[in-house]
Amino acid sequence: MTASLRIDGGRLSRRLERLGQVGALPGGGVCRLALTEADGAGRDLVVGWMRELGLEVSIDGIGNAVGIRKGREVGPPVMMGSHIDTVRTGGLYDGNLGVMAGLEVVAALDDAGVETRRPLAVAFFTNEEGARFQPDMMGSLVYTGGLSLEAALASVGIDGTKVGDDLARIGYAGATPVGRPSIHAYVELHVEQGPVLEAGGFTIGAVEGVQGISWTELTLAGQSNHAGTTPMRLRHDAGYVAASIALFARRLASEMGGDQVATVGALTLSPNLVNVIANRALMTVDLRNTDETRLAEAERRLLAHAEEAAAAEGVGLSRRTLARFRPVAFDPRLVARVEAIARDLRLSVRRLPSGAGHDAQMLASVCPACMIFVPSAGGVSHNVEEHTAPADLAAGADVLLRLVLELAG
Amino acid sequence: MTASLRIDGGRLSRRLERLGQVGALPGGGVCRLALTEADGAGRDLVVGWMRELGLEVSIDGIGNAVGIRKGREVGPPVMMGSHIDTVRTGGLYDGNLGVMAGLEVVAALDDAGVETRRPLAVAFFTNEEGARFQPDMMGSLVYTGGLSLEAALASVGIDGTKVGDDLARIGYAGATPVGRPSIHAYVELHVEQGPVLEAGGFTIGAVEGVQGISWTELTLAGQSNHAGTTPMRLRHDAGYVAASIALFARRLASEMGGDQVATVGALTLSPNLVNVIANRALMTVDLRNTDETRLAEAERRLLAHAEEAAAAEGVGLSRRTLARFRPVAFDPRLVARVEAIARDLRLSVRRLPSGAGHDAQMLASVCPACMIFVPSAGGVSHNVEEHTAPADLAAGADVLLRLVLELAG
Repeated sequence: MTASLRIDGGRLSRRLERLGQVGALPGGGVCRLALTEADGAGRDLVVGWMRELGLEVSIDGIGNAVGIRKGREVGPPVMMGSHIDTVRTGGLYDGNLGVMAGLEVVAALDDAGVETRRPLAVAFFTNEEGARFQPDMMGSLVYTGGLSLEAALASVGIDGTKVGDDLARIGYAGATPVGRPSIHAYVELHVEQGPVLEAGGFTIGAVEGVQGISWTELTLAGQSNHAGTTPMRLRHDAGYVAASIALFARRLASEMGGDQVATVGALTLSPNLVNVIANRALMTVDLRNTDETRLAEAERRLLAHAEEAAAAEGVGLSRRTLARFRPVAFDPRLVARVEAIARDLRLSVRRLPSGAGHDAQMLASVCPACMIFVPSAGGVSHNVEEHTAPADLAAGADVLLRLVLELAG
Repeated sequence: MTASLRIDGGRLSRRLERLGQVGALPGGGVCRLALTEADGAGRDLVVGWMRELGLEVSIDGIGNAVGIRKGREVGPPVMMGSHIDTVRTGGLYDGNLGVMAGLEVVAALDDAGVETRRPLAVAFFTNEEGARFQPDMMGSLVYTGGLSLEAALASVGIDGTKVGDDLARIGYAGATPVGRPSIHAYVELHVEQGPVLEAGGFTIGAVEGVQGISWTELTLAGQSNHAGTTPMRLRHDAGYVAASIALFARRLASEMGGDQVATVGALTLSPNLVNVIANRALMTVDLRNTDETRLAEAERRLLAHAEEAAAAEGVGLSRRTLARFRPVAFDPRLVARVEAIARDLRLSVRRLPSGAGHDAQMLASVCPACMIFVPSAGGVSHNVEEHTAPADLAAGADVLLRLVLELAG
């Protein structure tokens, strides 16, 4: 009987749209930056849905929410999950899909009167995006013991507020302790956020692992001076050095090839005036590679260029690591099962790595974990134009349902 | 008798220090951005000093203040002046020196009981810096008929407010009409804001003219996307194109040589997040040359590179001219007199062009005009570290006094 089970795709889409109304941006897309009022309202909505489905909800010290559906046996649950925070100009699917699909799996089982052997869990983790507080994937990192709760709560964000204070303000400083949880397996459904599946005409991605991520903040200290009277050779232009580093990052990715990517997404000049040479530039460099050795090479080369360019201009350079995650390989048996289930369901499938970081990579340190990808239209993500076709959303949730049923017995 | 006249250097320095207390920054320097409360307070102080010296003060429609000291004859005055607004992190001398020295010239003549044939005028012009409202040199531009009063009053600044509203708010929307004034000659004493005088051991600069200035604002429109999942070749990264333009600006100045300078002082990315490719970059390019043909060549080459880089990345480019002034040559007879007077006073002197724009270049369109430079320590300007030795300040004011006496008869 369970082989014919399907999730309700219409209801899944409606849930995603309803959640997308919380923090909706004029003209489309959504802004639910972690621990803002909008994030609080989104959490209230999702926790309400968990309770409607009879899940037993607990909130831990970093605000992660876990809803449990009892199994015939007591023991570690099979967990589904992701995050519901967004970037400043985000879409409706990134993160949200994995959580909403988890709810739909529970609903499908409830509708069919199916009781599993092991308990099921649906979770959302705090501040996956890292758009407001560092590091990203904060909630799952604390959940799996990779970061102390105290350090996470003390993190000061771009608005100058602390995680701990904002968490309390929105009412999600929970009582459940964090530590090394006991989970049977973790499965996360997510939009690809890249163009690979769509370009190849695939519906399902069996994610083999996650690229390693290196986020560095560079501060360049030059000297403010008059743009008209200061000869070029006498300048200590922090903005010029920053531009040189941004250009080198592109060249580095191009020279290294493979799946190496490099991005300067944030760059702020001071005093940022048309006729004043910048005395300060604050910039970030995001480097990713599936291979740890290559990622470390990219970091070395980038830093060497930054040091050289800063020295040549007589500009000071300091740096700070904002986030550093080694590449993660998902459980090979689970990856193979995603592939096999997709084929059973007559869905086209391919294996691929994830370029983005995901909560699943943190869970992979405490239990067998894997991810299921569905296509992102045009490869667009972290953008209000983010879109995945409703049929693809439902297909991904069906694979999730089947895999969870296998794992939960 | 007038040949032995000297200004009171101690009083000049004290006036500059007193004015520098208005809008003083913690740790040194000053912030009196045009038409802010601090600018209003600075204006009140200086107008008060004008009145104490018996000058007849008028304020015109753009807020320029002119204080007149009567001569034996009625007619066009010999005008001294500059500006008292500053950049956000400015020093005590840029602009302020020319106005304070004008007051000290009047005071020295009063003390010595000297009456001139022609009237004298001491003026300060509104918003010379352009750090808050475009274009820079706004007050002197309107004063000399180069920009309509209506257009200037309608200019919207970086805070979103209008010149007209802010002018009224600080009480400097005056009643005196603007137009083409009748001035016998204009002399502006100013700090060099560059390293040339100090490096050569000169006390006085006889300024031959002002570099032409071209300020362009470029807006780059790309596509926000995920920094981890978007292959390099599929990116439309507005920040990358901006960095490429900033680097090209430096290369352009280096290749063109001579006195060509190029500066990207302002650059703002959106959404300015570590893991999101920038969909928008707003940047300024400041180009200067003493030769109009060469300046136009620099503009052409810069724009050609910007168009090429934007097209290669699939990023939209739009541009807006923020300011454009042709190079200006000062009156050759006056330049020669500055040189001769400095030699008479046994001050080392050299001719040089001005890399910065000054109100004097606007006045040069309506009367014989010239400038006197004194050294800037380390060539530093538009910086809280801006400094000129008190003896140099006094030396420049003595040259001003002598030249004004010659011109006023």
